[in-house]
Amino acid sequence: MKVIEKILESTAAGDAGKTVFSFEFFPPKTEEGVENLFERMERMVAHNPTFCDITWGAGGSTAELTLEIARRMQNLVCVETMMHLTCTNMPVEKIDHALETIKKDGIQNVLALRGDPPRGQDKFVQIQGGFACALDLVEHIRKSYEAHPEVIESNGLATPEAYANDLAYLKRKVDAGADVIVTQLFYDVDNFLKFIPSEITAALEPIKDNEEAVRAYGVQLGTEMCKKIMASGIKTLHLYTLNMEKSALGILTNLGLIEESKISRPLPWRRPTNLFRLKEDVRPIFWANRPKSYITRTTGWEQYPHGRWGNASNASYGALTDHQKFMKYCLGQLKTSPWSELDALQPETKIIDEQLASINLKGFLTINSQPPVNGAKSELPSVGWGPAGGYVYQKAYVEFFCSGDKLNALVEKSKAYPSLTYVAVNKDGNLVSNVGINDVNAVTWGVFPAKEIIQPTVVDPSSFLIWKDEAFEIWSRGWAQLYSEDDSSRTLLQEVQNTYYLVSLVDNDYINSNLFTVFKDF
Amino acid sequence: MKVIEKILESTAAGDAGKTVFSFEFFPPKTEEGVENLFERMERMVAHNPTFCDITWGAGGSTAELTLEIARRMQNLVCVETMMHLTCTNMPVEKIDHALETIKKDGIQNVLALRGDPPRGQDKFVQIQGGFACALDLVEHIRKSYEAHPEVIESNGLATPEAYANDLAYLKRKVDAGADVIVTQLFYDVDNFLKFIPSEITAALEPIKDNEEAVRAYGVQLGTEMCKKIMASGIKTLHLYTLNMEKSALGILTNLGLIEESKISRPLPWRRPTNLFRLKEDVRPIFWANRPKSYITRTTGWEQYPHGRWGNASNASYGALTDHQKFMKYCLGQLKTSPWSELDALQPETKIIDEQLASINLKGFLTINSQPPVNGAKSELPSVGWGPAGGYVYQKAYVEFFCSGDKLNALVEKSKAYPSLTYVAVNKDGNLVSNVGINDVNAVTWGVFPAKEIIQPTVVDPSSFLIWKDEAFEIWSRGWAQLYSEDDSSRTLLQEVQNTYYLVSLVDNDYINSNLFTVFKDF
Repeated sequence: MKVIEKILESTAAGDAGKTVFSFEFFPPKTEEGVENLFERMERMVAHNPTFCDITWGAGGSTAELTLEIARRMQNLVCVETMMHLTCTNMPVEKIDHALETIKKDGIQNVLALRGDPPRGQDKFVQIQGGFACALDLVEHIRKSYEAHPEVIESNGLATPEAYANDLAYLKRKVDAGADVIVTQLFYDVDNFLKFIPSEITAALEPIKDNEEAVRAYGVQLGTEMCKKIMASGIKTLHLYTLNMEKSALGILTNLGLIEESKISRPLPWRRPTNLFRLKEDVRPIFWANRPKSYITRTTGWEQYPHGRWGNASNASYGALTDHQKFMKYCLGQLKTSPWSELDALQPETKIIDEQLASINLKGFLTINSQPPVNGAKSELPSVGWGPAGGYVYQKAYVEFFCSGDKLNALVEKSKAYPSLTYVAVNKDGNLVSNVGINDVNAVTWGVFPAKEIIQPTVVDPSSFLIWKDEAFEIWSRGWAQLYSEDDSSRTLLQEVQNTYYLVSLVDNDYINSNLFTVFKDF
Repeated sequence: MKVIEKILESTAAGDAGKTVFSFEFFPPKTEEGVENLFERMERMVAHNPTFCDITWGAGGSTAELTLEIARRMQNLVCVETMMHLTCTNMPVEKIDHALETIKKDGIQNVLALRGDPPRGQDKFVQIQGGFACALDLVEHIRKSYEAHPEVIESNGLATPEAYANDLAYLKRKVDAGADVIVTQLFYDVDNFLKFIPSEITAALEPIKDNEEAVRAYGVQLGTEMCKKIMASGIKTLHLYTLNMEKSALGILTNLGLIEESKISRPLPWRRPTNLFRLKEDVRPIFWANRPKSYITRTTGWEQYPHGRWGNASNASYGALTDHQKFMKYCLGQLKTSPWSELDALQPETKIIDEQLASINLKGFLTINSQPPVNGAKSELPSVGWGPAGGYVYQKAYVEFFCSGDKLNALVEKSKAYPSLTYVAVNKDGNLVSNVGINDVNAVTWGVFPAKEIIQPTVVDPSSFLIWKDEAFEIWSRGWAQLYSEDDSSRTLLQEVQNTYYLVSLVDNDYINSNLFTVFKDF
């Protein structure tokens, strides 16, 4: 979606006085820095910025990294992403390569810049086959603009002539098709409001050695600046985060624009922003804790399921061949379990954590679960999602590994509980089930005013057979291989992998749920 | 769906001992007889026969009527229909015309017969360009068979030779592709079991002048016959109803195969059997009381919505140009209101009949409604539908005509009830609404074990604008025209038509519903 549309939608819809915000990041210098940035970004994106942007790096020096970060932002973090693009050192072929790459990645927003002169040069010189200015670039791609500090004099003020020129030039860029205008970073609101930056450094001098004090001053200053901006009637704040989380979130908290307890979810999983999967609103539950793996596997599907799962039941899931990335997902960023990519257990899991602990002790090794929900208000932070005024539902679900013996006993006991349906499969594909392979079961759904029923999470036996390959592989690749070949832990883990069943168990009676009762005599 | 598939599905699925039944009808001689037959058929079809068939009439004499009845059975009554087709007086062009007609009408079942000789002839003679026997016809269309009574001698028994020949001939028809075999009407089970009819008339002699006694004897005899048939292991009963309702239903009731209180509904409206709309499972609520009008309007849609309504929101509704049929729908068969094609109020309406009466007295002239339902068991006869073990839901709904003044007051009062959404429109198309034109609202849905959410009824503002033309037209065409031109009733009705609004009102809070509270101060 185009940033301008999101801004218009947010500021127009219902609450016309709403102020929206966005975050800007730059490409870190090290691989570890990149992973840290993404962890930070996940937390910041939870507050629903209108968009985030990533800078291009001086002279195109970070071109490939910027493209890769933009791709991950749009597709895996699932935030609307705007990529910066400058003319510096960029012949038109390189510009087109960048534009084609992001187009393929489902990104629709570019911040078009002339860029600084290449390192060591004073003045920007148009390269052979390149562009002379952002206007050229806007005309080439009909995109965005910023005011460039070159017209600012050494006293921090622009000449009246430069000011007039700059405004006229801005008008031409808009005339050429620019939708959104982003100012350069600034500290002086009055000058911003007059369209000219100024300086603030003096106030920092006395506290410059006290990092905490500098940060607190920054947050305080930022808050005051934003208040002044908002008081002037401007409803769109774009924060240059300098890749830092706390100051940006601190300012927005002070302004009352975000609140930790009010993080809302449009769907139980983060809605895709990629142009090609905008309509996607149904997913199998199996990848609930591995959304990035799911997105990666299903990239390139011609149609993403929406409304119901049926249409996509024959879609092929790509094999997860990039094992290095796979390992990183399993072991690098992830702190809870090799089967989860998430930072922590989902909040709703707390509702059933004692039952889960109990059945784990009995030899049912759980890797995924959700509690039953019978018409909870959609605003509830724990299980709620979707627009206000609705009701959400879940069928109780638990997914686990267990031995063949345990499975047999469970199948026997479950006959006394007709509302339970299960699908179980071992590594070799032996299937034990009391439902049909095409019986797609909606396990999370929501009912909202003037809307059709939304059913974002399903148990689909066909998808389960794809998921089991990934789930079983984690025993060896994600875990056993951490031990040396003759280590007894490794032997044990491999035996589990070869003999256990992966079991998906649903209690279809979400009103009088007894999912865990079937385990009570184990 | 092919009858053989339905039989196999019914007798195989789960309850392997289940006996299924079907009804046979013949084309009545008068137009009134046809309408009576359809009323009877509606009630009989409510008991879910596997299929119904309609005979071809001696010598093709009823060909066009049989084709029309078959079309209405399949498409408007929505019962799986088998049409008889004989070779008598039928050159191949006529046979192909009949086959093409039913194919277009979404009918997949033909009972292929040789037929009796033409009236006045003793022996069947193959006509120029026609077929000699059912085998030819089966080979021509790969369809069905019956044992023909011509091989039966005057004592009611077949010769051993004829018996052997007939069995061999039957085998050839099956080899040629016949799926289902229907015996000729018979009264002697032992002979049926030996594949030869016998007589029963003697037993009727003493009671032949007492119609009630004859009927009671018939039901008793039929019941005993069926018991004997079922005891022999046969699971498929085909009843030649002779277009009579009570005997056929009486026998099935005695056998425990049907029960008035156990009529179940796969969906809130009768599921289509037409081949082309098998997947249809979502409809706008507006035609809830006029299903035949809805089916007629939407015949020929390329895709019928399933899963959700969104996909079909742009489908065009044909104009209802056949006014004679329209009038018949409105005034002929229908006893409740010009806006309903149904025999009586739907059972669930009893839940809210007092409230409805009350608001009608206040000037809100209701034509459609449903009570709120919050997770009722799917087996409940009043509001239940779909497979057992599920839960069904409804948002409270009411649709009515009212004056512009009443509408304005209602709009004002509804501000105190944020869960209410409405769309109102007058004859000229002036729209008053608090939802968007594309806000499709699911107002009936069901949650079932191992299934996606089913949402068969929606309020779709776009469809509402189509429906309003039909609804307003009924004021004049269905009502005002009953009076002479200068009658004051006619003037009043036409004024109502020209000035009132048609209003669709939903209470989106089906858990704490207060749809009628908003009317309390009128």
